[in-house]
Amino acid sequence: MRHTISVLVENKFGVLARIAGLFSGRGYNIESLSVAPTLDPTVSRMTIVTSGDDRVLEQINKQLNKLIDVIKVWDVTQKEFVDRELVLVRVEVSKDKRDELFRVAERFEARIADVGERSVTLEATGDEARIEDLIRLLKPLGIREFVRSGRVAILKSEQK
Amino acid sequence: MRHTISVLVENKFGVLARIAGLFSGRGYNIESLSVAPTLDPTVSRMTIVTSGDDRVLEQINKQLNKLIDVIKVWDVTQKEFVDRELVLVRVEVSKDKRDELFRVAERFEARIADVGERSVTLEATGDEARIEDLIRLLKPLGIREFVRSGRVAILKSEQK
Repeated sequence: MRHTISVLVENKFGVLARIAGLFSGRGYNIESLSVAPTLDPTVSRMTIVTSGDDRVLEQINKQLNKLIDVIKVWDVTQKEFVDRELVLVRVEVSKDKRDELFRVAERFEARIADVGERSVTLEATGDEARIEDLIRLLKPLGIREFVRSGRVAILKSEQK
Repeated sequence: MRHTISVLVENKFGVLARIAGLFSGRGYNIESLSVAPTLDPTVSRMTIVTSGDDRVLEQINKQLNKLIDVIKVWDVTQKEFVDRELVLVRVEVSKDKRDELFRVAERFEARIADVGERSVTLEATGDEARIEDLIRLLKPLGIREFVRSGRVAILKSEQK
């Protein structure tokens, strides 16, 4: 099963390497990961998307909890959550496909991040399905460059 | 100096641990990192934000290039680029601060990702300065939970 895991860690060097090593040491692939500081700059928050055997993941969670620099681990997949992803995508602009490009951008509420002579960079957010749909529609127009943030997730309102 | 580095890697387990280890082994902190698949699911793209001595960073770049699973490394900071970050932030909603919350959301073109009984989750994007401004305005309203994707970056139009 696919899991989205949030990890609060001390913002120290080496923590990311240890955590990534915990997953890879057990043959577990990390599909996407993002880590950035929280409101407290000494603490960072990671969102990890992974899939595989639930029992192994439980072991990884236990080991994560044992790491000295890990403050808290929770599997948001087990609760109600909101997830979003950010993509920046540079798409070719040609006279005959220009209208189609802006139609797609409008439909996905994508913002224009940069305009070049022969390409336009769009900024879009959404959950995974929405981002996949956007990519599917932009591909025939000619994607020149593409980067996504990986999933970030937050619990829906107050939950125990 | 602060650097934003893009790395294309084979999507295999262990790659993230090795790359993170390269930085921490030299006492280099990773401020933010995001990694997710590209359009080719066998290849992932990382965006790493780090700061420190330029000479050491050059060494790290060389070592990154030597890793067998690294396809390409480039320092976007040395060119013209667009960078964005995604945040999800759950903010308290009280009668007297409700209007202020929606004013801030509108000003930052933040989207409502979820509405709970006593809180609202906003989804916002921007460059670092914009995100910092948003946080500064939301803090007095009561931030309950907060997650950011870390920076993703893309080169502006065509560059050699």
